[in-house]
Amino acid sequence: MSQVYDRVALIGLGLIASSMFWAIKRAGLAVEVTGYARSQETRDTARRIGLCDRVCDSAREAVEGADLVVLCVPVGAMGQVAADLAPALKPGATVSDVGSVKRAVIDAVAPHIPSGVHFIPAHPLAGTEHSGPESGFESLFDNRWCLLVPDNGADEQAIVALQQLWQGMGAKVERMDPDHHDLVLSVTSHAPHLIAYTMVGVADDLSRVTDSEVIQYSAAGFRDFTRIAASDPTMWRDVFLANKDATLEILGRFTEELFALQRAIRRGDGTHLHDYFTRTRQIRRGIIEAGQDTDAPDFGRGQAAKD
Amino acid sequence: MSQVYDRVALIGLGLIASSMFWAIKRAGLAVEVTGYARSQETRDTARRIGLCDRVCDSAREAVEGADLVVLCVPVGAMGQVAADLAPALKPGATVSDVGSVKRAVIDAVAPHIPSGVHFIPAHPLAGTEHSGPESGFESLFDNRWCLLVPDNGADEQAIVALQQLWQGMGAKVERMDPDHHDLVLSVTSHAPHLIAYTMVGVADDLSRVTDSEVIQYSAAGFRDFTRIAASDPTMWRDVFLANKDATLEILGRFTEELFALQRAIRRGDGTHLHDYFTRTRQIRRGIIEAGQDTDAPDFGRGQAAKD
Repeated sequence: MSQVYDRVALIGLGLIASSMFWAIKRAGLAVEVTGYARSQETRDTARRIGLCDRVCDSAREAVEGADLVVLCVPVGAMGQVAADLAPALKPGATVSDVGSVKRAVIDAVAPHIPSGVHFIPAHPLAGTEHSGPESGFESLFDNRWCLLVPDNGADEQAIVALQQLWQGMGAKVERMDPDHHDLVLSVTSHAPHLIAYTMVGVADDLSRVTDSEVIQYSAAGFRDFTRIAASDPTMWRDVFLANKDATLEILGRFTEELFALQRAIRRGDGTHLHDYFTRTRQIRRGIIEAGQDTDAPDFGRGQAAKD
Repeated sequence: MSQVYDRVALIGLGLIASSMFWAIKRAGLAVEVTGYARSQETRDTARRIGLCDRVCDSAREAVEGADLVVLCVPVGAMGQVAADLAPALKPGATVSDVGSVKRAVIDAVAPHIPSGVHFIPAHPLAGTEHSGPESGFESLFDNRWCLLVPDNGADEQAIVALQQLWQGMGAKVERMDPDHHDLVLSVTSHAPHLIAYTMVGVADDLSRVTDSEVIQYSAAGFRDFTRIAASDPTMWRDVFLANKDATLEILGRFTEELFALQRAIRRGDGTHLHDYFTRTRQIRRGIIEAGQDTDAPDFGRGQAAKD
């Protein structure tokens, strides 16, 4: 893969932006990558670890002359950030983002995009439970999906360039309608995160079980939930508020199903439970076949065993 | 670690029993390990892969002369299995089990244990999403907890021997009261499993999102849920039915908390969400410090990226 853009500006320097920088450098996809973060501390850290070719003290300075500007801030901050930097955008440039919700980001950002600048929202389906400028790594997007959510009238050449960038960073790219994106992600990511946060909170509240027992005897199941529930609080607050309708709909369905299973437990209806669990086992098989996870037995994790 | 028992009998040859066999052999903890499984197919497989020194065609044959008999069958089958093999137990032998629920197993098994035979229930907190005789491996219990749940009047020497066996297989051992065990596990394992099963079932049901999209775009969160929801259906049906009260209590609390978070989303109460998510993040930190999981960024899994 070779150069796609002359200059890329990353606005916000957390897990995704820092991984993008290292992935862009790995493949030589841009001549220069500038970066900006609101907090002085983050900018200092970025300069110290060599994150971005040039760290700027304002968003406008970072986007000046950039061919691609990627908004890597929490979904709730996208609109304000776009408004701030819009006057400095180069004609013909592309603005994109990495938000986990697309309709709300489009509504917040699109009105600020000057005519002659392309806006192509995107969402890389990759992340870890860590956050901040030091959490990024160049392989984060390898073999992961990046969903592009362009408007119907979007410039095809600009879309293709952004697609090349993401492919160059290791991702597989697909296009999707924003509302459908928000529904799919509410199922595969947003609702599961809220559920994990909830379960971990319940455990923390239970006075008859001590925190140390919850931690000590955290078996498969809860341990995986805690990893999910360790994700960045600000990012996730914004995701739930920005994808309110789809998330609440899925949670409503979830509660219905949970009540049905609780009733089966209460009544001792083993057949209902067994049938349900057999069905869900099939889905796992599909995910492994789709290459989205490994079939290695993960519950007895090798790394943890070495502690 | 050296020999603890002359002969160990494993009744039921699934993931836990097969891992026990390989772990016992690794450390030389018994002279002979016999095995029995109800299904001819499982016994054939066991003979083919060298699982157990001697595979027997009846449970009674397997336990004859055994110093330790471990019931490795689903919780709902423990009582019947104990009744079947009880007449063949050697005086002075120890009967144990590996069930995920302890009160129900004690109630089902204890009445069948002849006087002069020790009964020391146990529960290794280890497993994977795979099942069957070929799913075991010798390191499954390394650095994992095994909880012993002996009766007040249990023979101390017999307890210590069982403890040595589990330590020899790599586990850390702790003693616990059966009812407290069932409550702790309902929080750290049983309720999370039911929740994961439920969420995966919801995704499968949602006609506006296709199965292939759920699979293709399964991000962190849902992907982890599918792994949990791929666990053995029979084992988990029995766990929920056998630990009904504690599981339903925890699920009740879970639903309360979930409703509170849903209300916060509906009302746009970002502070409530952010505070909640910040609290749950702390718990993760504790689990890593306790050595129960690794801090490596897991969501962008290395293995999956190599596919």
